[in-house]
Amino acid sequence: MSRKILVVGAGKSTAYLLDYLLDKAVSENLHITIGDLHPENLPGHYAIHGNAAIKKLNILEAEQRKAAVAEADIVVSMLPARFHIHMAKDCLDLGKHLVTASYVSPEIMALDADVKAKGLVFMNEIGVDPGIDHMSAMKVIDEIRDKGGKMLLFESFTGGLVAPESDNNLWNYKFTWNPRNVVVAGQGGAAKFIQEGTYKYIPYHKLFRRTEFLEVEGFGTFEAYANRDSLKYRDAYGLQDALTLYRGTMRRVGFSKAWNIFVQMGMTDDTYTIENSEGMSYREFVNLFLPYSPTDSVELKLRHYLKIDQDDIFWGKLLDLDLFNDQKKVTVKNGTPAQILQSILEASWTLDKTDKDMIVMYHKFGYELDGKKRQIDSNMVVLGEDDTHTAMAKTVGLPVAMATLAILNGKITKPGVRIPLEKEVYEPILAELETYGVHFNEFETSYLGYNPDTVGL
Amino acid sequence: MSRKILVVGAGKSTAYLLDYLLDKAVSENLHITIGDLHPENLPGHYAIHGNAAIKKLNILEAEQRKAAVAEADIVVSMLPARFHIHMAKDCLDLGKHLVTASYVSPEIMALDADVKAKGLVFMNEIGVDPGIDHMSAMKVIDEIRDKGGKMLLFESFTGGLVAPESDNNLWNYKFTWNPRNVVVAGQGGAAKFIQEGTYKYIPYHKLFRRTEFLEVEGFGTFEAYANRDSLKYRDAYGLQDALTLYRGTMRRVGFSKAWNIFVQMGMTDDTYTIENSEGMSYREFVNLFLPYSPTDSVELKLRHYLKIDQDDIFWGKLLDLDLFNDQKKVTVKNGTPAQILQSILEASWTLDKTDKDMIVMYHKFGYELDGKKRQIDSNMVVLGEDDTHTAMAKTVGLPVAMATLAILNGKITKPGVRIPLEKEVYEPILAELETYGVHFNEFETSYLGYNPDTVGL
Repeated sequence: MSRKILVVGAGKSTAYLLDYLLDKAVSENLHITIGDLHPENLPGHYAIHGNAAIKKLNILEAEQRKAAVAEADIVVSMLPARFHIHMAKDCLDLGKHLVTASYVSPEIMALDADVKAKGLVFMNEIGVDPGIDHMSAMKVIDEIRDKGGKMLLFESFTGGLVAPESDNNLWNYKFTWNPRNVVVAGQGGAAKFIQEGTYKYIPYHKLFRRTEFLEVEGFGTFEAYANRDSLKYRDAYGLQDALTLYRGTMRRVGFSKAWNIFVQMGMTDDTYTIENSEGMSYREFVNLFLPYSPTDSVELKLRHYLKIDQDDIFWGKLLDLDLFNDQKKVTVKNGTPAQILQSILEASWTLDKTDKDMIVMYHKFGYELDGKKRQIDSNMVVLGEDDTHTAMAKTVGLPVAMATLAILNGKITKPGVRIPLEKEVYEPILAELETYGVHFNEFETSYLGYNPDTVGL
Repeated sequence: MSRKILVVGAGKSTAYLLDYLLDKAVSENLHITIGDLHPENLPGHYAIHGNAAIKKLNILEAEQRKAAVAEADIVVSMLPARFHIHMAKDCLDLGKHLVTASYVSPEIMALDADVKAKGLVFMNEIGVDPGIDHMSAMKVIDEIRDKGGKMLLFESFTGGLVAPESDNNLWNYKFTWNPRNVVVAGQGGAAKFIQEGTYKYIPYHKLFRRTEFLEVEGFGTFEAYANRDSLKYRDAYGLQDALTLYRGTMRRVGFSKAWNIFVQMGMTDDTYTIENSEGMSYREFVNLFLPYSPTDSVELKLRHYLKIDQDDIFWGKLLDLDLFNDQKKVTVKNGTPAQILQSILEASWTLDKTDKDMIVMYHKFGYELDGKKRQIDSNMVVLGEDDTHTAMAKTVGLPVAMATLAILNGKITKPGVRIPLEKEVYEPILAELETYGVHFNEFETSYLGYNPDTVGL
């Protein structure tokens, strides 16, 4: 009898996931049910595959949902993160394994004891950031520890960017994932990390001015700004004694300095709405954040306010977005500044059909071994192939699919609400990812500790 | 039979309030009960006054509280604002009038219909900002309207400052009221106002860089930064059609630019706590917000981070606070940055016994009359007399006391949850305040509209 996999939510990131499972369906004796609210949008080749079935599924209808889960041996939830809890509770009740690429929510974590008691595996955070970052970091950290080394420093950076061949705007950026997350990134509290044993805090309005530079061979220089909580995985990674812990988001150099204009103006604020935003020109939107003047232009007021020289290279970035256009109109109704800014950016930063994306990851591991301080750097670049087979879909979907099969095959067995930190998980998956071109380039470098020369103000 | 007044909460601002009522006690046939959790701290002369009684009162004990309210004809609540609702509910149940100097909370507002039904007056916001600002503004606005004028512009500014004779630090500032409110001022969302018909928004991190200058004859130049919601009283004042509405807080010139250093650093953040803050040196506290460097000083890092020239006048302001001292220790346990900063500031900005305070208020009224645009400016300065008879206690306490007596005497009669916007309230009270030296200087000036030349930066 075939093993039954239920994949719910066939969105942006499921092309590789489904292709992987369908490719193995015959040899591995799998039957894959794809449950989606809008199955009519799915590509035709799924429907005609002998080991696949497409089902219209509204996961908010408890009966439908439970029936679908009951039929499966394992459930893969690619739904928006807030819906996982519905799947998780059914999986627990009905004794099914679960795989998601999302952060473990407190509600899901609360199921841990019951999941363990039933011997089930609920594997989460097994996409890319979170996912591949956990696995590739733990691999090197475990190797260092196995040799008797002591971790001193761990820094980790990931970026979802546009591939070099499609990189054709002044921002060197397009939306390759949820635009909203990009616009509100860093909000909600100061960024916290540790440098050389000292806690450090960066308020939101300074976040994009405290970037770190990173070189990736063949791809040039990137910059990174700090994530809100670099200490999140301190215990999970066993890095309680590390002197430096820093996690960040990668962009092309110059992005953050220009993005900071929006932050300084208050255009990324998502806490209040602007009455009658619909129909307002882009220029009027910008002017909401500048003092009134009967004579001075919006341009001059902005330059003066933020002390931007007339010939500053990032002025062009604002023009590129048509930010001062008095003909282009905001289409968002009573939007927050963040929602309106997002709509303006989407007009410029949406991927064309032919555009390709790129995922970049960079880790630094500082450690002491045999009385000497050493450092290993490790990085990965994955390029998208087309607008369906994106780097994002690949790096999210493949590890999810591999973990799903490994659980079915009894290769991943430790029960509970888990994230991929252990050898039994990361070793086979990283090895298999290599065969799909997801490759980490590791090299030894001299230990710099936390070198301030690599920090751009 | 004497009329019975219950005054609850005899704190910082009740010296003038109680003296006023006790002075009138015989002629007006009043009996004043002072209810306080710590009556032992009250000055002795209250206890021996024939028309006064001091009572230990814990307003969180419902029975005690109700008994005290039941005996009174009117209740004056000088408690912290969050406790007013307990008094208000008892006053409603027992049919007593109520006076407070605090902002009307939604809970108090919700009682309005019942208060009206019982014919009671619950007068609020009758101290100083809110209070004297309402009354002095409505007086001029009503005069303009009575002449047939149409309001175009209303700006209103208040500041609690140190009197010129006690103004002896580089910040030209000391805490004359709740220090916490000063440290977190402006937080919680963008400041919103209207300039020449256009909404304007200032994010918190820019608030202290968008100041406006104000001249007060005999007292020199002040600056003001925007309050969070300048539109709060738009309807109450009948200013729906005004083109410019702006409310702000006054400081001495240069304060805001220097305060902005703390904002930029993230030192005013009140949303997270710093582990082990107790015992940290002032210098270490500052360094939490600066990048790590094995070589550079905290001073240089801060200067570089915020682009402060070595000879900038406001650098001295930081030294004045001993901010880089590595011997002075933070005494706050697991404090938020705001709490720690407050404790550092209190070490420098607490009033000496001999220091005097000052309240400054400034209104601008732009209007059109007979086809011509005109402007009236109006301002007030009140100086403290000693550390009990402060300007703050005077401007808060006197209007509260006067309103209390006016309600008892049937001069203020309109029932409901009210703020002092009507002639029956402001006319007699402003006139009587004049006899206590609370004087508004009114003068006509040419209408400038919103003149950007008076805006700093």
